[in-house]
Amino acid sequence: MPALKIFPDLKPIHILGLMSGTSCDGLDIAMVETRGAALQTRFKVRATQSIAYGAELTDQLLHFISKKEHSLKEISQFNFFMARTWAGQIEHFLKKYNIDKGHIDLIASHGQTLWHQPDPENFLNEKISSTLQLGDPAVLANLLNIPVVGNFRVADMALGGQGAPLIPYFDWVFFARFKKNILALNIGGISNITYIPADGSFEKVTAFDCGPGNMLIDGAMQLLYNKPFDADGAVAASGKNAGMLLNHIKGLDIFAKIKPPKSTGRELYNLNFIRDITRFAKKENIGAADIIHTITRYTALAIFEGYKNFVKHKIDALAIAGGGAKNSFLQKMLREYFGEIAVNPTSFYGLDEDFKEAIGFAILANETIRGNTSNVPSATGARGKTILGTICWVQKF
Amino acid sequence: MPALKIFPDLKPIHILGLMSGTSCDGLDIAMVETRGAALQTRFKVRATQSIAYGAELTDQLLHFISKKEHSLKEISQFNFFMARTWAGQIEHFLKKYNIDKGHIDLIASHGQTLWHQPDPENFLNEKISSTLQLGDPAVLANLLNIPVVGNFRVADMALGGQGAPLIPYFDWVFFARFKKNILALNIGGISNITYIPADGSFEKVTAFDCGPGNMLIDGAMQLLYNKPFDADGAVAASGKNAGMLLNHIKGLDIFAKIKPPKSTGRELYNLNFIRDITRFAKKENIGAADIIHTITRYTALAIFEGYKNFVKHKIDALAIAGGGAKNSFLQKMLREYFGEIAVNPTSFYGLDEDFKEAIGFAILANETIRGNTSNVPSATGARGKTILGTICWVQKF
Repeated sequence: MPALKIFPDLKPIHILGLMSGTSCDGLDIAMVETRGAALQTRFKVRATQSIAYGAELTDQLLHFISKKEHSLKEISQFNFFMARTWAGQIEHFLKKYNIDKGHIDLIASHGQTLWHQPDPENFLNEKISSTLQLGDPAVLANLLNIPVVGNFRVADMALGGQGAPLIPYFDWVFFARFKKNILALNIGGISNITYIPADGSFEKVTAFDCGPGNMLIDGAMQLLYNKPFDADGAVAASGKNAGMLLNHIKGLDIFAKIKPPKSTGRELYNLNFIRDITRFAKKENIGAADIIHTITRYTALAIFEGYKNFVKHKIDALAIAGGGAKNSFLQKMLREYFGEIAVNPTSFYGLDEDFKEAIGFAILANETIRGNTSNVPSATGARGKTILGTICWVQKF
Repeated sequence: MPALKIFPDLKPIHILGLMSGTSCDGLDIAMVETRGAALQTRFKVRATQSIAYGAELTDQLLHFISKKEHSLKEISQFNFFMARTWAGQIEHFLKKYNIDKGHIDLIASHGQTLWHQPDPENFLNEKISSTLQLGDPAVLANLLNIPVVGNFRVADMALGGQGAPLIPYFDWVFFARFKKNILALNIGGISNITYIPADGSFEKVTAFDCGPGNMLIDGAMQLLYNKPFDADGAVAASGKNAGMLLNHIKGLDIFAKIKPPKSTGRELYNLNFIRDITRFAKKENIGAADIIHTITRYTALAIFEGYKNFVKHKIDALAIAGGGAKNSFLQKMLREYFGEIAVNPTSFYGLDEDFKEAIGFAILANETIRGNTSNVPSATGARGKTILGTICWVQKF
């Protein structure tokens, strides 16, 4: 049984990492030049772009995904449609940066998540947990004539894991070289953290979803201010803490108290959750800015408590990526809770906080084509390590 | 850009080919030992088994696939469920033949077809053709710790092809060595033919779906005799030809007249088609056995006319595989139409006619992991050759 070593370890290869999030607003592309693998990985980000789908297509995609019932025909068409859309966006990206297509060795495509269910539920008399990302990697590969690695989450879930989070492997690859105890924090819709020990030991890496990221803040801003988000935390900064509301939110957040491994999506921190907060606030005469302030504070607190309760190690630094890295009031709150610990965006370490996931999946694909595993079983709960992603090869002439 | 050569060309590898047809009655497994690739392929079939799902599961699967509306959750679960089912069946197969799991290098999984639509139709303002096989190859790979190649049809369709037929490549690999002009005929639900020239030239290979295989005979047997099929053609043999009915069926069969490349499924030869036949027969006072006789005769005639009209070469032999190879009256009719040409089941050439597809996909996967293309563009209509299938690797310890 030969190992899968398509590329010699020392030759640099060029990978396009693609991330298409659940918000369906567009595709993040990062062109990453990599060399080596695992802790010997060296990489440079050569170009990045976030390409919006446009409001009309975003609406159509969100509508499609949130519908209750689908025909097999439209599921099948969606799978091809998304890959075609991304192929067009990649052509645009390559043209913008004047990059020859033949220069790209590999694409790492996360795919569009249509379903993700780590907890098993009944299907034809069996308990089945499953995950479904569409936007077919073989379609993408053939339209561009570039090999594609996709469907990263399936293998881990087949081994009883949550299929998430997967970025902790990349956190380990990237942050271990700094030889500090670092907590890598990503604040997307959900917040998640990865602890990377100063000695680089893979076995000590700890990672899980903490709780709400921007999801509660954004949801409350839409409800109270009819704005998509709190730019730089200005509204939160103008309000003050409402202690009773903070305690109320703490009580509502049953996910934060669960012991890892754990992962969550939009199931808990949804409109019902936010309406519960605003109802309580109304009853207690708490104003809108104070609500946003308190939710923002809670978001920071849940991250800190996730760290305090479930990471059994002291840390030297907190490195923030994701949309939340742009909310300076949220960062201020994090500094308050984390005290002496250095709090910085990941760009402080040379990692673009806006493209961390796209870069991360490029690094995961780099492991895949070298035949290396890249799940973190302590983070996902999988029975063992596994090679993530399916490989769609193409013939180059 | 390196080629994908995971296995050295001369080492024999052991591949399990899996076929799970649209009838959802079970899984065909063929263990194939291969060496080399393309026309240098040498293979031996070491073991075969057809494992039924059982009547209850078959009913559930057929019901699931024929439903009009599906939730994303159940689509996602189905994808994992089928792979788990096959993993269990493979464990059973290996145990039965006392084969060590570590002895299997690779699995070739066709997957369960949920949708196949070569002709583009509108989806979010784009014309999309697509195909969808579920039963996730990465789940199968991780449950068994054996690499899997799956989703063979996607790449060809991404290049504008019909994604079918794919077995012609295998027909070429297998029959070219006999150095005769051979017409390989498969009679499943649909009939399809592949012409392989005596000189082994890939460019001269011609292949397409002809028309009905067992589908009309089986459907009429169910309607008229409440039996699943006409065992060995006994009913057809007891009837006689009804010339007017034969002409009527010829008129109904619009698919048979289309110029290749072409492929079809259950769209045309469905219950409506059969009811049209029996209505006409009733009006003309044609008895049940004569209907079955005439339909069987038409099935043979459509194959012969497909050959005569669209294969521009003389043939020396006709080699039959699939369920239709078990219908000796159908073979008699074929001998009548093909005259001097030798008509035999593929076992005459050393190829088990019951497992041709499972063996064929094993041979396609053998090409895939060696980085070779295996579609036949003249048969599928694709813009070019492409590597079929996505590769799910595993780490063996």
